[in-house]
Amino acid sequence: MSNKKFLTPQSEDFSQWYLDIVDKAELADYSAVKGCMIIRPYGYRIWELMQQDLDHRIKEAGVQNAYFPLFIPESFLTKEKDHVEGFAPEVAVVTHAGGKKLEEALIVRPTSETIMYDTYSKWIESYRDLPLLINQWANVVRWEMRTRPFLRTTEFLWQEGHTVHATKEEADVETLRALTMYADFARDMLALPVLKGYKSEKEKFRGALYTTCIEALAKDGKSIQFGTSHNLGQNFAKPFNISFLDKDGERKIPWQTSWGVSTRMIGALIVCHGDDDGLVLPPPVAPIQVVMVPIAKDEKELGHLIQVCHDLKQQVPSIRIHIDNRLEVSLGFKRNEWELKGVPLRIELGKQEIEKNSLSIARRDNKEKATISINDWSDTVTTLLKQMTADIYQNMEKRLEGSVHEASNLQEFEAALERGGYVKAYFCEDGEMEQKIQEKTKATTRLVALDEPEKKGVCFYSGKPAKRRWYFAKAY
Amino acid sequence: MSNKKFLTPQSEDFSQWYLDIVDKAELADYSAVKGCMIIRPYGYRIWELMQQDLDHRIKEAGVQNAYFPLFIPESFLTKEKDHVEGFAPEVAVVTHAGGKKLEEALIVRPTSETIMYDTYSKWIESYRDLPLLINQWANVVRWEMRTRPFLRTTEFLWQEGHTVHATKEEADVETLRALTMYADFARDMLALPVLKGYKSEKEKFRGALYTTCIEALAKDGKSIQFGTSHNLGQNFAKPFNISFLDKDGERKIPWQTSWGVSTRMIGALIVCHGDDDGLVLPPPVAPIQVVMVPIAKDEKELGHLIQVCHDLKQQVPSIRIHIDNRLEVSLGFKRNEWELKGVPLRIELGKQEIEKNSLSIARRDNKEKATISINDWSDTVTTLLKQMTADIYQNMEKRLEGSVHEASNLQEFEAALERGGYVKAYFCEDGEMEQKIQEKTKATTRLVALDEPEKKGVCFYSGKPAKRRWYFAKAY
Repeated sequence: MSNKKFLTPQSEDFSQWYLDIVDKAELADYSAVKGCMIIRPYGYRIWELMQQDLDHRIKEAGVQNAYFPLFIPESFLTKEKDHVEGFAPEVAVVTHAGGKKLEEALIVRPTSETIMYDTYSKWIESYRDLPLLINQWANVVRWEMRTRPFLRTTEFLWQEGHTVHATKEEADVETLRALTMYADFARDMLALPVLKGYKSEKEKFRGALYTTCIEALAKDGKSIQFGTSHNLGQNFAKPFNISFLDKDGERKIPWQTSWGVSTRMIGALIVCHGDDDGLVLPPPVAPIQVVMVPIAKDEKELGHLIQVCHDLKQQVPSIRIHIDNRLEVSLGFKRNEWELKGVPLRIELGKQEIEKNSLSIARRDNKEKATISINDWSDTVTTLLKQMTADIYQNMEKRLEGSVHEASNLQEFEAALERGGYVKAYFCEDGEMEQKIQEKTKATTRLVALDEPEKKGVCFYSGKPAKRRWYFAKAY
Repeated sequence: MSNKKFLTPQSEDFSQWYLDIVDKAELADYSAVKGCMIIRPYGYRIWELMQQDLDHRIKEAGVQNAYFPLFIPESFLTKEKDHVEGFAPEVAVVTHAGGKKLEEALIVRPTSETIMYDTYSKWIESYRDLPLLINQWANVVRWEMRTRPFLRTTEFLWQEGHTVHATKEEADVETLRALTMYADFARDMLALPVLKGYKSEKEKFRGALYTTCIEALAKDGKSIQFGTSHNLGQNFAKPFNISFLDKDGERKIPWQTSWGVSTRMIGALIVCHGDDDGLVLPPPVAPIQVVMVPIAKDEKELGHLIQVCHDLKQQVPSIRIHIDNRLEVSLGFKRNEWELKGVPLRIELGKQEIEKNSLSIARRDNKEKATISINDWSDTVTTLLKQMTADIYQNMEKRLEGSVHEASNLQEFEAALERGGYVKAYFCEDGEMEQKIQEKTKATTRLVALDEPEKKGVCFYSGKPAKRRWYFAKAY
């Protein structure tokens, strides 16, 4: 019995494969409200493990958590022109409350710039109040037409950092600090190598001076963005009247950043690491890192084996271990289920193994099996889990490197796109051309690398002068 | 300079004292949306410390976290008759989204019974699926007319546990397990002794079979409820079509519980422990457990003292220590500020102390000061923080015990109420009488103790037969 029975193969229909995994691995469920998902315990635990680690990184950077209201007065959203244009079409609006029609309608936050910065203007008076470094873990709502669990949902969970600085340079540094934090987090916790760079004018956050992002390569050759960091310039500070008295006695307008990652990261994990047998979870974010499956011929033998499992578990208290002591399902069923759920290591042990003082161990990522000595258990499992994260990352890195193809004209561009992954090409950075490229090829500008040098080039599409090579791809 | 300058004395105007603390200790701020508060970093950190510990207790009980949608279809709320009567008047309603009027209005969740149980009916098929033990950390919205930060706000943060069981007995056990968990948490983390008991029919959760609660005694003699646990009976399972195939092959309707605590606990901390100098935080939930204030005559001396502080801090990495190295404010200002913020221990050190190998230490709770040896630093501070939690708890316990007065008629009842705290009296449990008592005395039934024995008594108010003594008090 293979999970292929339960999962549509990736090669057949990647989108259906994705939905199958979300369902069968019990990550999320659909709710009665269109586009809103229910995050099930197994999926939510992944989110908690992500949160714990990222929250630590955020605090280490001196950023403090706070909580701002869910509701935003409609008039706030309209204060920054680009921002309202970007978000107004997709907001949910509370018009009635407490049995009455409200005098001013309230927007359910799609992002919190406006509600936060209204308050920031009260908190910031002098240079001593800067930098102001605040983060919030919250739910946000964007009324999307087409939704998919984790990847695009009407309501999602995220963190949003919102900082204020005395100068543009400090805001630049903070924008990149957050981006680097996300890239490091993706490497250490998600085993995902990412491209880091700047978004085009067309793709940037509405209201930002510029937007930076991280993107990873999915198994279907598409790119998935799952973290952004914006330098907001003074675009919000001005309409929200944020100013500070500087050391030199002058009143100045500060510079701001905002940055966020969301439950979309769970979607990224699935599409970047998953295979035809199910999820592949990197150990740092696996709710169960090791599953132990005792194989017994009767209940007495099972009791003994379960005792062995408990002893082994106690030796490594920091590792998340689950003992599968179910009698009502077969070994084949169990193997399939734990592969489907992406558990990094599966231990099988029977009477024979115990007599030989050994354990059978199977890796989820590369399907390798081995026999290990019970005496070395603690060291072996600790080392192996670390090794797996590194191996998954390195394999993904090779895949990413092999999936970037250069193109100097449309024909090459389309041929490269056909192979999946990224096309790197000189691009004139003209928004109109960008729109045409997207309409013709379905590919969008993903980013221009942070360290991309300026050279004299020719736009692959318009033939106009171009100075930087951009990454293009079909995207989530 | 005393904090009395900044804070209205409790004896003068307790409500104003409360609002002063919330503001001056930077716990919360008002937002542009009526009744919605902004939880500032210092206040939010208290919430995080509460969450961390309580989340651990919840997981230890085998309850798993999940996340359900913010929005509830209007038709769901109306399925349980009492429930909708209780909540309909105070809901916020989304009528428009994505630029269009919605076909069915969406309620912003005031509590999640209905949205969760709709899904539970899909998840539960057989006895093997029970018990189902789910918890959610979330924001909820109840449109309140009169609001006060933390104590009663339109939006607040909470956790809500929602469990399903095969029998009433199992639901009874879970209801009390959750209540006991809250009481233990209140003792260990908040240093708060609580009364535990059953609510009256009038005061119970709308839709529950019965409600249990914990209540603590505030400094103004009022009672504050800050945790409830309900046995919901089959009241929701029936309209939401939750049923399971039991071992005996019969289809049965399960029994449910729900239980929650919220950011109101921060309000409870303030009103139960605070004094005229500000907050008094029990060490387990203090964002800063120890503040170190170096006292130097010049910058060079300050540099040396700060180095000493860092060395001391490194010796106790698990203790949350802040070093106050500000030059621009006076020692008096610092002392007032840290007292206002309720920091449990304040260390002062100058050149003289260091030469004598000693530190000055001041407790926030009882204002005791002492000189301790630097050599014993690590042990002393660790022991002292534990001792403080125990001392605060014991003092509160004595206060609580001394604040329960018995009454056998209305005159005694009113006299007892005048003294503040609880009045314990036989009560006939007639809802109409309960209403009259409230109108006449402003006191409400708080609870009847879990272990209250049944006896033959006479209702203090109606003169009718009564079997149990209830706790009455004015309440938050």
